[in-house]
Amino acid sequence: ICGLGAPNTADKSSPNIVIMLMDDMGWGDLGSFGQPSKETPNLDSMAAQGMLFPNFYTANPLCSPSRASLLTGRLPVRNGFYTTNAHARNAYTPQEIVGGISKDEILLPQVLKKKGYVNKIIGKWHLGHRTHHLPLEHGFDEWLGAPNCHFGPYNNSDRPNIPVYNNSQMVGRYYEEFEIDKKTGESNLTQIYLKEGLDFIFHQAKARRPFFLYWAADATHAPVYASKRFLGKSQRGRYGDAVMELDDSVGQILNSLRDLGIDKDTFVFFTSDNGAALMSGPKQSGSNGPFLCGKETTFEGGMREPAIAWWPGHIPAGTVSQQLGSVMDLFSTSLSLAGLNVPEDRAIDGLDLSPVLLNNTHVNRPIFYYRGNEMMAVRLGPYKAHYWTWSNSWEEFNQGIDFCPGQEVAGVTTHTQQEHTMQPIIFHLGRDPGEKYPISVLTKEYQDALSRITPVVVKHKNGLVPGLPQLNMCDLAVMNWAPPGCEKLGKCLKAPKSQPWKCDWPH
Amino acid sequence: ICGLGAPNTADKSSPNIVIMLMDDMGWGDLGSFGQPSKETPNLDSMAAQGMLFPNFYTANPLCSPSRASLLTGRLPVRNGFYTTNAHARNAYTPQEIVGGISKDEILLPQVLKKKGYVNKIIGKWHLGHRTHHLPLEHGFDEWLGAPNCHFGPYNNSDRPNIPVYNNSQMVGRYYEEFEIDKKTGESNLTQIYLKEGLDFIFHQAKARRPFFLYWAADATHAPVYASKRFLGKSQRGRYGDAVMELDDSVGQILNSLRDLGIDKDTFVFFTSDNGAALMSGPKQSGSNGPFLCGKETTFEGGMREPAIAWWPGHIPAGTVSQQLGSVMDLFSTSLSLAGLNVPEDRAIDGLDLSPVLLNNTHVNRPIFYYRGNEMMAVRLGPYKAHYWTWSNSWEEFNQGIDFCPGQEVAGVTTHTQQEHTMQPIIFHLGRDPGEKYPISVLTKEYQDALSRITPVVVKHKNGLVPGLPQLNMCDLAVMNWAPPGCEKLGKCLKAPKSQPWKCDWPH
Ligand SMILES: [Ca+2]
Ligand SMILES: [Ca+2]
Repeated sequence: ICGLGAPNTADKSSPNIVIMLMDDMGWGDLGSFGQPSKETPNLDSMAAQGMLFPNFYTANPLCSPSRASLLTGRLPVRNGFYTTNAHARNAYTPQEIVGGISKDEILLPQVLKKKGYVNKIIGKWHLGHRTHHLPLEHGFDEWLGAPNCHFGPYNNSDRPNIPVYNNSQMVGRYYEEFEIDKKTGESNLTQIYLKEGLDFIFHQAKARRPFFLYWAADATHAPVYASKRFLGKSQRGRYGDAVMELDDSVGQILNSLRDLGIDKDTFVFFTSDNGAALMSGPKQSGSNGPFLCGKETTFEGGMREPAIAWWPGHIPAGTVSQQLGSVMDLFSTSLSLAGLNVPEDRAIDGLDLSPVLLNNTHVNRPIFYYRGNEMMAVRLGPYKAHYWTWSNSWEEFNQGIDFCPGQEVAGVTTHTQQEHTMQPIIFHLGRDPGEKYPISVLTKEYQDALSRITPVVVKHKNGLVPGLPQLNMCDLAVMNWAPPGCEKLGKCLKAPKSQPWKCDWPH
Repeated sequence: ICGLGAPNTADKSSPNIVIMLMDDMGWGDLGSFGQPSKETPNLDSMAAQGMLFPNFYTANPLCSPSRASLLTGRLPVRNGFYTTNAHARNAYTPQEIVGGISKDEILLPQVLKKKGYVNKIIGKWHLGHRTHHLPLEHGFDEWLGAPNCHFGPYNNSDRPNIPVYNNSQMVGRYYEEFEIDKKTGESNLTQIYLKEGLDFIFHQAKARRPFFLYWAADATHAPVYASKRFLGKSQRGRYGDAVMELDDSVGQILNSLRDLGIDKDTFVFFTSDNGAALMSGPKQSGSNGPFLCGKETTFEGGMREPAIAWWPGHIPAGTVSQQLGSVMDLFSTSLSLAGLNVPEDRAIDGLDLSPVLLNNTHVNRPIFYYRGNEMMAVRLGPYKAHYWTWSNSWEEFNQGIDFCPGQEVAGVTTHTQQEHTMQPIIFHLGRDPGEKYPISVLTKEYQDALSRITPVVVKHKNGLVPGLPQLNMCDLAVMNWAPPGCEKLGKCLKAPKSQPWKCDWPH
């Protein structure tokens, strides 16, 4: 890979990096972010000991592009995690997807290797499930987890169950060796991921090697699950049980860092990949707090994420940063903390937040909200301008799929794609976090805000070179029929003949 | 007043009591309750040093009845703060109201006098503005503030400006001696109320007398105001400026208790009288966090309040209580802490929360949601059953008055009064705090919840003796034309002839 040398020996000054990325957890799911049940004591302690970011964003309101952006520091429209099959559509990596993360992208663990980091991903990958897309082909040294969502169970004839990998070999499948009881919601997966994380941390600490742990548990993605000890424990039903188990896991991971004496050498960041999946209903989804709509949308509920940074002795305890942040910043920030430069041969959207983290400074920067390759909205300071709005199609909506249940803002949460490029809808997110009161175009406030936003948008669009879209083609033949390692387990399935088609992305 | 003896001498074991009651502040307006701007460091510290109640309720979604309930420990339907002019309507005390707090009601300061408490109200009274309704006639020893909302300015011929009282004499009027600049939002009222509070605390502490301070600032009620130092300081516009000033005042009051060495002898409770007034728009109202609708409604946004209890050395620091609480509990709890009994000759709806505060226990109890004399809904545990739903009339709604802007839950946020008494709409407020997903009547969960709620409702209704409604009659002659003290100031105005009418309560 261009620009990457051989791994150097360990640098003692490079902190360990732990990124805990939740799946479909909403901004409003943590006590410290206003969840009324306040059942996240460990995360709330983490915030009290670290820095809380109320204005932190994902790069896309959907799993795969969000995760691709975190690991590349680049918008999906640059790293290829989008579709051009239709206008302003969300796309991800179901198992019939042909594409995945491109070999041309440089991922965070690949750069960290230059400083001798040992890189592990635990949990959901979601950047493509075909062999050349898997984590160990893209800079990770170790992996325990699955390439796709834990949908299922499938019958293994029309559609195979999703494999779980240990490094580059499958070790079983969801609903088979790795059980999820959809009726009771019971699964030990979070405990498995916790134990794997604690073991990894323990061994790297003992070996005194800097490590990067990307802990991507998915218990809060439908079908939501928790282990027996947590089922029925929350006031919020099964979803809250999952949150409590994840909160407990976060507490155990932070405690292990303390117990091993490496808490002051380990930068930990907690966030989520997209907003709560409101369309799944209250038993299978979380809370976006006061924000509008949820997952799949470019409203705040789709893209504003809970976010906490923790690094005792380095990040001042109990601080709140109003910095606008992005999952893409985790790329640039992690590299900066490790003493590494970001790749210079490409556009990087991530910002180095280390001055913010270490000195509580503030940088003025925009946030771009995309669906497909369409820039739907942009935030600058407290103002957010929507150039395109919609939630989903009437056809879908009339089938009961609702991205904004109980919410309807006229001209905003529309079911046709509404163009506002000549006169964007502008909200003041400080006094109107719920995006309910468009600022009148006749006001000076509107004109002032627009005059500041317009040059930022022009500059962004002029500098944008879209990457090759990776999420256009589907093919049943590429599904997880026979992942590496299936022979040993006797779990290889027969793939159908290849018949690629342009994937249909309905929203 | 029946049952009340002469004031006793001071009892050293009786803590001072400070109730800080905000006006139209929403559950979601505090950082510790999830306001994204997190601009309430003093209240957040108060929560960290005390006990936070995420499930605390007002007794009515409107100022006057809520305040009457706080001071009497009784539901508005019992203490008379309601109307029977129409079904399920909100009523309050505008200055044309004839009624007010009845001489038959026993108010908290009246009982506290039995233990030698000095009682002061600072700010908004709102239990009637005619002479016999004023605070010094109902147990308070001192008052600085106004009997009504700070609406205006008026021309003093059709309608007088609202008087500000010092004890039993008016000392000026809003928009005259007590300026509120509606254009800039500037007013020094919060600073005046703060200084008055600090002075009162100082003098009682020096005199070693137990005191009750009812600090009822109203800067967050439209027209929202702040003093010059705070204007433009928040990320949330003028409303946020007002919140910041109130937060600063809370900090100063708590600091003064510490500085005077009486923090361990002073029970402080912070809450609000009703939910954020969403109908006033984002420049003049706050946030109800994830809850449905706002002020005037019996949805959670109308009646769930921010609430923090603080009493160093007695209330365990940094705790969250899931207890369902009510402003009416402040009556019973204050009396209990003072070593007094609640009146035994009448129904008291308030609960003594002292075991909750001191030992973090939990009591199962219902919350009743009223509009007028109609029980609209009841909460028991996590379940809330709506027997009647509506927001406001189509006629009002079509004029742009919206209690639920950007929100619409079918069959729930209706514009006609919907009766569900035979089959209430039930929500699980744990997993569905936003009241968006009615539980299907066909489920066991619905039947189980209803079977627990029904006997509670039957018992409540059977035991209910409504008080005489005080908010039925209006008369322009009773307005604040010539309050006591007006002669000295040369500010007496001529009242029109008495022409009483049945007040029209549109929602
Ligand atoms: Ca996701
Ligand atoms: Ca009020």
